[in-house]
Amino acid sequence: MADTKTNSERNEAENKIRVGIVGYGNLGRGVELALAQNPDMELAGIFSRRDPAQVSPGKGGAGKVFKLDALQGMKDALDVLIICGGSATDLPKTTPLLARDFTVVDSFDTHAKIPEHFAAVDAAAQAGKTVGIISVGWDPGMFSLNRAIAQAILPKGSDYTFWGKGVSQGHSDAVRRIEGVLDARQYTIPVEDAINAIREGATPSLTTRQKHSRQCYVVAEEGADQARIAEEIITMPHYFDEYDTEVVFISAEEMRAEHSELPHGGVVLRSGHTGADEEHTQIIEYRLQLDSNPEFTSSVLVAYARAAYRLAEEGTTGCKTVFDIAPAYLMTATPEEARASLL
Amino acid sequence: MADTKTNSERNEAENKIRVGIVGYGNLGRGVELALAQNPDMELAGIFSRRDPAQVSPGKGGAGKVFKLDALQGMKDALDVLIICGGSATDLPKTTPLLARDFTVVDSFDTHAKIPEHFAAVDAAAQAGKTVGIISVGWDPGMFSLNRAIAQAILPKGSDYTFWGKGVSQGHSDAVRRIEGVLDARQYTIPVEDAINAIREGATPSLTTRQKHSRQCYVVAEEGADQARIAEEIITMPHYFDEYDTEVVFISAEEMRAEHSELPHGGVVLRSGHTGADEEHTQIIEYRLQLDSNPEFTSSVLVAYARAAYRLAEEGTTGCKTVFDIAPAYLMTATPEEARASLL
Repeated sequence: MADTKTNSERNEAENKIRVGIVGYGNLGRGVELALAQNPDMELAGIFSRRDPAQVSPGKGGAGKVFKLDALQGMKDALDVLIICGGSATDLPKTTPLLARDFTVVDSFDTHAKIPEHFAAVDAAAQAGKTVGIISVGWDPGMFSLNRAIAQAILPKGSDYTFWGKGVSQGHSDAVRRIEGVLDARQYTIPVEDAINAIREGATPSLTTRQKHSRQCYVVAEEGADQARIAEEIITMPHYFDEYDTEVVFISAEEMRAEHSELPHGGVVLRSGHTGADEEHTQIIEYRLQLDSNPEFTSSVLVAYARAAYRLAEEGTTGCKTVFDIAPAYLMTATPEEARASLL
Repeated sequence: MADTKTNSERNEAENKIRVGIVGYGNLGRGVELALAQNPDMELAGIFSRRDPAQVSPGKGGAGKVFKLDALQGMKDALDVLIICGGSATDLPKTTPLLARDFTVVDSFDTHAKIPEHFAAVDAAAQAGKTVGIISVGWDPGMFSLNRAIAQAILPKGSDYTFWGKGVSQGHSDAVRRIEGVLDARQYTIPVEDAINAIREGATPSLTTRQKHSRQCYVVAEEGADQARIAEEIITMPHYFDEYDTEVVFISAEEMRAEHSELPHGGVVLRSGHTGADEEHTQIIEYRLQLDSNPEFTSSVLVAYARAAYRLAEEGTTGCKTVFDIAPAYLMTATPEEARASLL
């Protein structure tokens, strides 16, 4: 049967950016969903360490699940890989390894180790003549961008970052490791009075306790000593001892019904001063309120995958961060459309 | 006497970006003040159509005021010009004219005419092998950037922009033209209930009246018919007839004491949806609260002047907007510093 597609249909299909997802947890699933919202991109494959038969993708991923080692044979079918792994042990190995052969984007979020990760990805991407954009998401990512631009605009001033209200996976895991705890969910809560004082022009020096409080919902084993569990949480070094922490014991049913989502968010504020005597207060505020932390991070990753593809097409090579990407690379509008309708 | 400056002092002075201010109203004065806050830049000259003897610069501009036609003879002493003129008649002529010989930045803000202005500045900058960054400020400018990036991240969603509370010069001028009015100050006020509803996840279609209200402080001539003045304001087409407007008559003294500043600000919101059934609401909010609208716009112009200089140094030519500038070009931190401390 003859090919009945019109030229424009064919071109549209041919021109789509073909994206591979490496790793299929919350983040990988979010990327799959985000790709379905971006008509200029298509899911080309989900690559997992697990047996493909054990992976159940959404409708966008049906028939597109492969073993991780199939990647090398599929170079010609993939424009960009979004690497959805953990920052502790996975991304430091996987991103440099894959950057040798693919243009890649990751969400590496261990702030202190970013220079080291950048160097490894840059060496691989320079050698492979690819592009790697690292530390994409909201913090690092959109929050970093807003901190940096606000500082550039208002060099005299104070910065504040508040996180929450939202689930911290690291703190939830720390509580789950306590003896007698079956399940736990930890919410980080910003101190609204502190945020409001900054909005009104104050530039306070805030202690850890004055910026955030913590709330733990805990399912305990039957007969466990709840007072001992609460005490272990509240006094846990690094995680809880510097905060006001509330511990609430709930049933497994209530945990499932009320705490199964992963909301998060936060606020970045720059309180700057301009004028001959710095007499004018100028406040820049960037705020995120997210029903789903992983789906938002995934949405940011997909926008930067578009940028990575375009940079690679232009012949750029090496490692980049959000600081290096002009906004136009993220947008689907043409430059003319953007100037006419978005500026 | 021998030169006693150390090498690093000399290099610091030699490496400063030399900025010329063209036009010396509120915006030009703001640029002069902003340059004093940026140690990598220096004021090289203030260029005015007025007689230099009639221009009283701040301490940064002492001895640096020149007639506009001195510009052509000072090409080697200037790296970037910040053109501080009005968008109605001045910038459409001045920016393309000066872009032939200088790297320039302006705050052209007539949204509908940006494509035309871009084309004129691009032709001049391509011919002169210079860089021109246009429409820099907060709207167009930072608000545009946030609208565009938020749309790129969350393709499914609704956009909202609210302005104020702040002084609208155009509306103040319109009231001043009414017979019997000696002076007037108009504040644009966002409807907080509408903003709060969006923050809580609603995506309403809002009429003009549901988004902003207007407040006019008026000094009337002695014996003027205040009821007639108020009626003329409230029913004025385009400016006031589609809004709820409050008119308050005050004395000239009260105007001076209470309404001499130019505050402004506003909020850009993107309420997006992600998930298999778009079941998760993701809200991005960017908010400005400015004691001085012209000083903030000036601060943005100065940050983009840094970018324009760096682009020109790299050999880039032509017209650019905020969409084309990677954040790293705005920042004083080196790429290494930025990754280590700002990401």
